[in-house]
Formats: sequence, structure tokens, C-alpha cells
Amino acid sequence: MARSRSESLLVTVFEDGARRRRPDELVVEEPMTIQLDGNIVSTTMRTPGNDYELAAGFCFSDGLLGGARVKGVRYCADGAASESQFNVVTVETGGKAPVPTPRLGTTTSSCGLCGNDSIEALCDRLDVLTETPPIAIEVLAAMPDAVLSGQGLFSTTGAVHAAAAFTPAGEVLTTREDVGRHNAVDKVVGRMLLDGQLPATGLGLFVSGRASFELVQKAWAAGFGTLVAVSAPTALAVQTARRAGLTLAGFVRGNRVNVYAPERMQP
Amino acid sequence: MARSRSESLLVTVFEDGARRRRPDELVVEEPMTIQLDGNIVSTTMRTPGNDYELAAGFCFSDGLLGGARVKGVRYCADGAASESQFNVVTVETGGKAPVPTPRLGTTTSSCGLCGNDSIEALCDRLDVLTETPPIAIEVLAAMPDAVLSGQGLFSTTGAVHAAAAFTPAGEVLTTREDVGRHNAVDKVVGRMLLDGQLPATGLGLFVSGRASFELVQKAWAAGFGTLVAVSAPTALAVQTARRAGLTLAGFVRGNRVNVYAPERMQP
Repeated sequence: MARSRSESLLVTVFEDGARRRRPDELVVEEPMTIQLDGNIVSTTMRTPGNDYELAAGFCFSDGLLGGARVKGVRYCADGAASESQFNVVTVETGGKAPVPTPRLGTTTSSCGLCGNDSIEALCDRLDVLTETPPIAIEVLAAMPDAVLSGQGLFSTTGAVHAAAAFTPAGEVLTTREDVGRHNAVDKVVGRMLLDGQLPATGLGLFVSGRASFELVQKAWAAGFGTLVAVSAPTALAVQTARRAGLTLAGFVRGNRVNVYAPERMQP
Repeated sequence: MARSRSESLLVTVFEDGARRRRPDELVVEEPMTIQLDGNIVSTTMRTPGNDYELAAGFCFSDGLLGGARVKGVRYCADGAASESQFNVVTVETGGKAPVPTPRLGTTTSSCGLCGNDSIEALCDRLDVLTETPPIAIEVLAAMPDAVLSGQGLFSTTGAVHAAAAFTPAGEVLTTREDVGRHNAVDKVVGRMLLDGQLPATGLGLFVSGRASFELVQKAWAAGFGTLVAVSAPTALAVQTARRAGLTLAGFVRGNRVNVYAPERMQP
């Protein structure tokens, strides 16, 4: 089912002392609950569309599949023809994936189990990337413009992020948009997973906006050798990229590119 | 304890065909686990600093306090002098707050319980705002510049969001910065909660970046009559603001302000 990804609403525009009413195109944001073999693993605010990719990509990036093959992805429709039945998506591995442990559940916990341990657990199971030939700086610098043509929702709403997989030659393979940067990345990773194209060895991943730890971790999990962000990375994002052996570039503006990882670029 | 909120790292800058190495200031991003009376309620990636405000504000905005008074907020230090002990914060109500129910935990669920129901549950307990005198458009338009002077971390890293409470006269009361917009809002709300200044009747809330459902819900819960975002809102953010009786302005750029809610502005 094709879901609406933007809505037209009347807005009052005040400009230079004058006011007028005009329609404005707004990006749609709806909650989606992701299940793995019947267990809820996450609820995320997302832009409808490519929901199966989002669910599969999330489970993969978060290490929930444990190597199990995705046998199917489906909406959790219970017969009631309501809109909300399209906001619950189940990834099926036939019970081959390990039973997920609660991430943000309500449990009494000692200080020993905190977010730092979660980060270690996420990274520890990932191998350092080795087959990562560098992608030319000129290709990285050209990515924002190259991806823009596939950002249909951004051009109408100005309120969504994009993620895209690209080749060392600068060819854009898959572009996805979402109100959440992490969702856009999960959709790209999910598409590649469902197409049997992971790991993404040798390819680059582009994200509009900033590069957080979460995005570096997702790129690493999918096997991308390079992550390019339009804006700044966080300190933890840089540390994680250096640990991963992943090239991290940011602040891509016209003729300028900052390279944050690896620590020293070869000439 | 004063935690570092930014780190200096060496970065390779490629510009106009030349390359050079220079230090770059990056915003710090670390996980923080929030507990309420010993129960974990959330783990969020945040910029260290104002952690008590963040924990208290999160519990309040998410409706977890149920009207209970915050008796104290503290780090969950267990004697081990490690960094990570400052990444777990407990909000104490002496058991007066209801035991939190898992939000994103792993449970087998029917389709009947999904994100849409969570949104309804969050909004249903909030009263429509009535005492919300409009704030002059000129004041809203001036907010980005007025708040910028308090955005110390943004000026050095370019990678954080800001939230600020302001009066109808345009006076900025409290500014907080964080890698996450929602965290910046929680810190402002938490500060006001701990100071006994909620509900924020008559005041406005400013956020850099976009306005999502989550931000409107937090502003509504704290009693702000007006929310101003630098960028675009989502469709659900507008619907929620109209339901709340909250004035929602966006795309504040120089002399231009878009007003998305209420549906029709009085002349």
C-alpha cells in the first residue's frame, strides 16, 4: 500500500510585515513498531514508506538477527482495516534469530549495566574493516549534489534527512528519506539486506546532517568502508570510526571536505 | 563534577585541492541511563552537562512522575570511581511515582498495542492549553539571534541543538544545548521543574532545527503556550499543536515566520 509521505496544510506566513495564507507541504511522521519473530524490539517515529526495509535494516544494524536469514517481512495486520495496522511490522526468521533482550525496558539494574556497556556490546561483535580502499576526495565532495536529485521529499518539505549508498566512482545506488537520519540509514541497509547485497564492502554511505555514534555503528555493521556526512560528527562518532577502520568525512561544503578518520590520511 | 562537553581532535581538511591538518572541536556524545526510583526508564545519547535537569525533565515530559514531587536527583555512583558512574542518573520520588511500564521492551504484543496508542496515551492525559496569550511575531522572529549568544557549544562545534525558554517580551530565561534536540528541551524543562517554575504558562519555547511530534508533546506537557522552531515542523507536530491549543511557528528566517497552529491566526 502506498502511504502518503507528505501532507498539505494551510499555514500563515508573516513576511516583511505582511501576512498571507498559503498551503505548505509537511513531511508525515508516524510511529512504527518493529517486531522480530513476534517480539517488539523498537518503536520509532518515521516517515511511512519502505517500511519493510526499515524493519529489516534496524534488526540487522542492531545485531538482532545474529546471522539468521530474514525469511519474510510483513505488516502485522489483524483483519481490522485500520491505518494503524500498517504501523506494526514483523521481521520473520522462523525463530532462528536469538530472542531479543530488552534495550530500554523497565528493570532494576545495578550501575554495572549502562549505556556504555551497550555501546561496547554493539561494537565488540563487529570486526575491524580491512578491505576499505579509499574513495577519492572529489567523489566525497560531490555526494551532496549527487544525492539531492533523489531527495524528492526534501525538495517539497525541507524537513527530511537522506541516506544513500554510493560506489567509489560516485554512482548513487540507493537513496532513502525519513524524518530520522537513523531511519533513512536503516532503510538503505534494509534494502541491501533484502537484495542480498551485504556486506557493503568497498561502497560509501552518505548521510545528510550530522554524524552521530549511531550512524557510524550502523555503517560499520553493514560493512561500508566510508561514511560521508554533510555536517559535523560527534567525538564518539570519530572515535568509533577510527576503531572500525572506517573513513569518516564531514562538513562537506562545496570544495571543502574534513576527514576525521582514519587519524592520518595517506597522501 | 564538570564534564567535558567538547573534545579537540586533529582533522585533515581538503580544500580547493590543498590539504592541511588542524585541530577541530567536536561535541561530546555519551550514553546516559535514566532511572526513576531505581527502575530504568530510558537510555539516551546526550552531551554531558545538566544531567540532573535532563533526567528530571525526561521523567516529567514523558508523564512518568504522575504528579509526584521530585525529592532528589543523583548519580548512581557505586563507589567505583569510573567515568561511567556519571552516566547513570536516578530521579527519586520516594516511590510516589507510579512504577513505569516498559516503553520499548521486549514483550509479545498484539497489534492492538502500538505506537499510535502510545501517542494517544501521552496526549490524552494533557489538558488543552487555555491561558496562552499570543506572543508578537516580531518576538518570535528575533528568537534565533537572541538565543545564539547562549549557544557556546554550537559556536565551537557547529554540531549541537539548542532549546530556550523565553518571555512574551523576548527575554531568554534558560538556554540548554545537546546533540539531541529532545535532550535540550528536557534540560530546559528539568531546570524549570527543579526550580518550581512549571507549568510554563505564558512562556515560549525555542528550538533550533525542526519541530517533531516529540518536541510539541514536551512543550505541551510543560505548559508552554508557544513553540518556535528554526526549521520545518512535521505534519503530526502541527496536528498535535492544534489539538493542544499551542501556537506553533517554524521556518523562522530573518523577517519571515510561518505559523502552523492554531489553524487561523487572529489579525
